Amino acid sequence: MALDNIVAQELATRFGDRFTQNPTERLNHAGGESHHVKQPPDAVVWPLSSDEVAAIVRVCVAHDTPVIGYGLGSSLEGHVSAVRGGVAIDMMRMERILRVSPDDLDCTVEAGITREALNTGLRASGLFFPVDPGANATLGGMAATRASGTTTVRYGTMSENVLSLKVVTPEGEIIHTGARARKSSAGYDLKHLYIGSEGTLGIITELTLRLHGRPEVVVAGVATFPGPDEASRSAIEAIQAALNPQRMEYLDAGGIRGVNAVAHLGEDEADTLFFEFAGSGDEVAAQVAFFEDIARDNGALSFRTATAQEDRERLWRARHGAYPASLSLRPGSKGWLTDVCVPIGALAENVTAAKALMAACPVPSVVLGHVGDGNFHVIFALDPENADEMAAVEAVNEKIVARALASGGTCTGEHGVGLGKMRFMEAEHGAALGIMRRLKAALDPKGLFNPGKMLP
Amino acid sequence: MALDNIVAQELATRFGDRFTQNPTERLNHAGGESHHVKQPPDAVVWPLSSDEVAAIVRVCVAHDTPVIGYGLGSSLEGHVSAVRGGVAIDMMRMERILRVSPDDLDCTVEAGITREALNTGLRASGLFFPVDPGANATLGGMAATRASGTTTVRYGTMSENVLSLKVVTPEGEIIHTGARARKSSAGYDLKHLYIGSEGTLGIITELTLRLHGRPEVVVAGVATFPGPDEASRSAIEAIQAALNPQRMEYLDAGGIRGVNAVAHLGEDEADTLFFEFAGSGDEVAAQVAFFEDIARDNGALSFRTATAQEDRERLWRARHGAYPASLSLRPGSKGWLTDVCVPIGALAENVTAAKALMAACPVPSVVLGHVGDGNFHVIFALDPENADEMAAVEAVNEKIVARALASGGTCTGEHGVGLGKMRFMEAEHGAALGIMRRLKAALDPKGLFNPGKMLP
Repeated sequence: MALDNIVAQELATRFGDRFTQNPTERLNHAGGESHHVKQPPDAVVWPLSSDEVAAIVRVCVAHDTPVIGYGLGSSLEGHVSAVRGGVAIDMMRMERILRVSPDDLDCTVEAGITREALNTGLRASGLFFPVDPGANATLGGMAATRASGTTTVRYGTMSENVLSLKVVTPEGEIIHTGARARKSSAGYDLKHLYIGSEGTLGIITELTLRLHGRPEVVVAGVATFPGPDEASRSAIEAIQAALNPQRMEYLDAGGIRGVNAVAHLGEDEADTLFFEFAGSGDEVAAQVAFFEDIARDNGALSFRTATAQEDRERLWRARHGAYPASLSLRPGSKGWLTDVCVPIGALAENVTAAKALMAACPVPSVVLGHVGDGNFHVIFALDPENADEMAAVEAVNEKIVARALASGGTCTGEHGVGLGKMRFMEAEHGAALGIMRRLKAALDPKGLFNPGKMLP
Repeated sequence: MALDNIVAQELATRFGDRFTQNPTERLNHAGGESHHVKQPPDAVVWPLSSDEVAAIVRVCVAHDTPVIGYGLGSSLEGHVSAVRGGVAIDMMRMERILRVSPDDLDCTVEAGITREALNTGLRASGLFFPVDPGANATLGGMAATRASGTTTVRYGTMSENVLSLKVVTPEGEIIHTGARARKSSAGYDLKHLYIGSEGTLGIITELTLRLHGRPEVVVAGVATFPGPDEASRSAIEAIQAALNPQRMEYLDAGGIRGVNAVAHLGEDEADTLFFEFAGSGDEVAAQVAFFEDIARDNGALSFRTATAQEDRERLWRARHGAYPASLSLRPGSKGWLTDVCVPIGALAENVTAAKALMAACPVPSVVLGHVGDGNFHVIFALDPENADEMAAVEAVNEKIVARALASGGTCTGEHGVGLGKMRFMEAEHGAALGIMRRLKAALDPKGLFNPGKMLP
């Protein structure tokens, strides 16, 4: 594919060296992480404002050129691969914090700011933005995929933490959705329609976010168990008992072995829960003691906690290193991550079934999960050039998804559909998929916004 | 207007005495509470299943007949008035609890069950559904208006407490939206599109709801203040300090005077906060003590609490009686309720400005509010036949809404748009209103679902 000449000329004239068709930059914008196919866009442009995004969109749409919103490129499901060419709109230079209101516990930011840059910028306010998908993603990308992560068990996903959005539509109009109020019943919930729309309905350019006060005391901990079932049950029982952890993460024995090998951590190579409780001192102490009882009743082999920040970080090191460690065990491999989420009561059986499938698969893999949410990932370290491996992993993934759907769950808890989960949309949504197609046709009639994604 | 003959015949044949054109029943389905115009539908039908709802919809849509979903009729914005005639689908005989899963902390119910019937049915499980809009509304109606209420400050609105919906579309198809998992990134968020759609995109027939464990200890309390500003500031500071009340309600001195007159309660006639903290004993005691400090610092005149259920109910009596008391002060009057919601930091100035407007208005009124959310209502006790009174209240409402919008808030925090807030949709949403219109046209191309509502 090649870029339409008029589009190239108009964008070059307006954006100067913020527009390029340079092959290296195009390759830099060819896809996210993970095993999915990488396809470079025909050009890349770096806007500085919503008005500039609207101008880019108008030029592209007038000449039937696809547009792909691009953030940090940390997508795991092939969301930003330019499968039909077109222009990648790189949002990374729109990275300002426009407003922080400690009184209202909210802020407004441009879509290209990363979550770490945001939290650094918020430090003086005593507030923070909790959603943490692992990668240092942009807030725009996180909203576009309805991201969540380790703290969702307490603070919710992007869905609960975005108050309003500014969006550039396929008509090149700039709209505002939502309000800064805590709640509203004023008309269709457009905010939630754009959250998770993966760039297929518009480009998110600004976000107003709920902020939270930093808790007085944080206690982190690690508990090890004889098997995945005992670990999962402990997490489930904590949620059922209305404990309120701010993190509740699982990493299997193989994953611990991986981080030990890579980072020489010397952790016990057992199925492990990493957890964190936060609040006032008394409250946290009571919750940790209650959780220790639950873990011991489920046969915990060890249980230790830490309060000082440095010690907490040491405890979490194994969990944070799990993804790269899983891949570095097999140099040159790419990650294929499953991402199902199930009702909490069905978590243990789904994890146990996944472990059996993994054991029978030739590709090395580990399980980790935001188990407090019922969400877990299997990371396969595979060679994407090896068709047999791809087929074997695909078959396992399919079985994991089928079981999750049969449990009332979803094929993707937090990574989104992109290219990777399109084939499960029919099974998960049935007739509702027809409604999604009608929404897409109504809001992007030419089908130019991130084409070839989400809707099969 | 008269009902199409074929529609009448087909529905009479299929539904027997569950279909009627009786004038009394039509009048019973002519509108909700409040001052809005009442317009009876041409017929009423009582389905027993989603399939029956789908059958009704197919007949009506085939013959261009409007359909209006009808629950308990407790709407305050004229949502269920049959302004273009048609068939009211009364959901009250679809009132079963289909499934309760204590392990997953969720349940599935038919749309016609009321929230009190649901919580009675849940009693044995130790779980409860928290959203409490005051009226004993149906869950379907609560979802359709994105309702909230006194416990939203802790548990969120319907938006956060619905996991999935079954919906009958204008094509007469039955679709499922959402999953039972805690979170999902699988495609467009149809669930949130139908929540708050006020029957204009489809009829909600079943809901899967998040449930919560009953807290160990509940402490309720009442604090009185010299004026609205001191009361509002105390609520604001509690939220800003990350206290976690499960209720934080305001009633002004005039409202207390009303309930004293009607119910002889003998409460101090001062601006009052009603609050409730819940959790473990230590935690609750610490939060109440902290909140007492905040209230005293803001000049509280009195501060008392109660723990036993009977004593808590006595404390809440004034707040619960406020709406009828406000109206019974002026026999024969109808309520006109404003419903703005603003960022929490802007609450005190918005309440104070509203009080000044109320003082200059000839119609008696009181303020009450879910102030922990930044949401407050002015209840005007007016004579809807008196054009001067209607004009005076309308002018005040307009100013209250304008100030809320200027503060970044919304014209309706929880009552919905219906007929009453249509005129503010343009001011609140601007160009986004065009997107809403396109969604409506895409999903209800004949415009037969609750016509004449929401979109101006």
